[in-house]
Amino acid sequence: MVPSEILQAIEAVARPDAEWAARAGSRQARLTMPPGSLGRLLELGRQLASLQLTDQPVGTPALVAVFASDHGVAASGVSAYPSEVTGQMVANYLAGGAAVNVLARRAGAMVRVVDLGVAALPDSLKGDDRLGSFPIAAGTRNFLYEPAMTRADAFRAFVVGLRLGDQWTKRDGFRVVALGEMGIGNTTSASALLAALTGAPVEQVVGRGTGVDDDGYLRKCGVIVEALARHGPGVVDLWDTLARLGGFEIIGLAGLALGAARNRALIVLDGLISTVAGLIAVRLCPALRGALVGSHLGPEPGHRVALAEIGLRPLLDLGLRLGEGTGATLALPLVGSAADLLREMATFDSAGVSGPASH
Amino acid sequence: MVPSEILQAIEAVARPDAEWAARAGSRQARLTMPPGSLGRLLELGRQLASLQLTDQPVGTPALVAVFASDHGVAASGVSAYPSEVTGQMVANYLAGGAAVNVLARRAGAMVRVVDLGVAALPDSLKGDDRLGSFPIAAGTRNFLYEPAMTRADAFRAFVVGLRLGDQWTKRDGFRVVALGEMGIGNTTSASALLAALTGAPVEQVVGRGTGVDDDGYLRKCGVIVEALARHGPGVVDLWDTLARLGGFEIIGLAGLALGAARNRALIVLDGLISTVAGLIAVRLCPALRGALVGSHLGPEPGHRVALAEIGLRPLLDLGLRLGEGTGATLALPLVGSAADLLREMATFDSAGVSGPASH
Repeated sequence: MVPSEILQAIEAVARPDAEWAARAGSRQARLTMPPGSLGRLLELGRQLASLQLTDQPVGTPALVAVFASDHGVAASGVSAYPSEVTGQMVANYLAGGAAVNVLARRAGAMVRVVDLGVAALPDSLKGDDRLGSFPIAAGTRNFLYEPAMTRADAFRAFVVGLRLGDQWTKRDGFRVVALGEMGIGNTTSASALLAALTGAPVEQVVGRGTGVDDDGYLRKCGVIVEALARHGPGVVDLWDTLARLGGFEIIGLAGLALGAARNRALIVLDGLISTVAGLIAVRLCPALRGALVGSHLGPEPGHRVALAEIGLRPLLDLGLRLGEGTGATLALPLVGSAADLLREMATFDSAGVSGPASH
Repeated sequence: MVPSEILQAIEAVARPDAEWAARAGSRQARLTMPPGSLGRLLELGRQLASLQLTDQPVGTPALVAVFASDHGVAASGVSAYPSEVTGQMVANYLAGGAAVNVLARRAGAMVRVVDLGVAALPDSLKGDDRLGSFPIAAGTRNFLYEPAMTRADAFRAFVVGLRLGDQWTKRDGFRVVALGEMGIGNTTSASALLAALTGAPVEQVVGRGTGVDDDGYLRKCGVIVEALARHGPGVVDLWDTLARLGGFEIIGLAGLALGAARNRALIVLDGLISTVAGLIAVRLCPALRGALVGSHLGPEPGHRVALAEIGLRPLLDLGLRLGEGTGATLALPLVGSAADLLREMATFDSAGVSGPASH
């Protein structure tokens, strides 16, 4: 049984309002520029309008959520880095020294870090009130041999994200939420989930993650093929797939997307992992699609597959493959700008600028 | 005779320093992320390092320069808008209501507007000290029938930009300069210059500018073909080409690029017109190429040709075709971020994060 809290949240998501998107489009046509001449920024502006029910939307305040947890499958040699890095990077995020922190400062966004199941959290962080502490377990189990988690744990991870998404948007007022993640081994989980959810062949959804070598890449493909063979036949529904192949942070981010979407926030996806979380959220709640933005396209092959499956055209293409929300954070100034144009630009009338000449 | 002021500036441009780029690369490899995982941002960081001669460069303060002037060829029906819009938009820039103003506020950049030859400047702006006032003439002549300007005027327009570039970087301390422009008819001038400088066929370099209809597009192509036939055979050198087909603002921006480059600033190109200005600057001073960044690729066909001719891969692809520096301004947060990463990120050592595991 899916918890009623989740079902109610799914019901509560309204589709974006086409009327307000059209009104924003009319406003854009009166602004002092040739019609349509700011391309994708104008689309983004209309999307914000459709969510916020105004033709003068805001693109701030923006939050970058970094959900962290560990993966049992990392023991099978699928990552270039050891699992202890997950906890070490959580410490780095809290100290403000990671890439996502630097980029968020430039973008004027806040970073919040949540532990969904970090196996080795540095002692210094225990009880640190800057860290959202909602661990489901000390990492997932290795899905090469057994389900990564129980179905109950999958619900738990999702509900953590759902409640945080609700609080951060409704209570704290964030209008834009970027989905970031950290978890050694989590591209393996995301690729496996993506293959299971879409039926895409493994070679189309597996990449080198943070940079495994040729041997590691082949190991990673083999692990995913074997895991799909083990778990595929018995899968009963989406939640079962999530429990068998998931990561706590990936499922939590899907919940976060739902919680933010029900309060009409814009949700900015990052790389493969957060885009797979977005896909999970859309599968659970198709109305949520209109709240999603694809921030960038990275070299991880599954990223393209996941974006296409949702139907998103990414904003940036800069060869980013770091994750942790960095690509989504780099797109935040575009989101802010898209809203600013609708609120701050002069109109042809107000500025006394002539329109097109008639020849 | 090319004025010695220009020749000396060309001599004064040093090539970017490969040693400092390499040192910045070494520093990037120690930062807490998988090697190379921020793609183009890391390239940008090394470029800034090579210009600023440090492995901890800055991406600010940034200036957006909007050079404005009118074009005699506008009388031949090549634009969707009447020439009076050039002056009206200058007023809009000074009032802060144009797209470039809105985007510059979001990016934390300053906008400076320069009149190189606006035909109809609104009376209210005469003597306004916020406007850089260096008009060469009240617009160019129509190059369909005669050279757009004298050779002496081409030198004058260039030197205006050269001196401003020198002042803004050396005296005022701007480390990044974005090249923006306004001038009804100026895509026609830029496309003609591009065809003349590269030999590219007219259909590869002409687009719809701010949005001419089918008739206007055909007129525009015809005007350029005829102008190239009229002026091409007699051209004696680059300066002659600029004088025959140029616009004051385009030549001025080429001068601005040279003035900024001699003080090792990063120069961010915008759309077709400013990229043609960048190409002119590179033809005059090949060492300047390493100071240029292509901010975006727009739908104007010549934009791709001009970027390729310089050898630049643009950062953004968002369907922008407004000009006035908007695309360059949208790229400024990427420039700032690229520098921030080198200055602010923790290293693996300083953050106590483990490096790649050895399998």
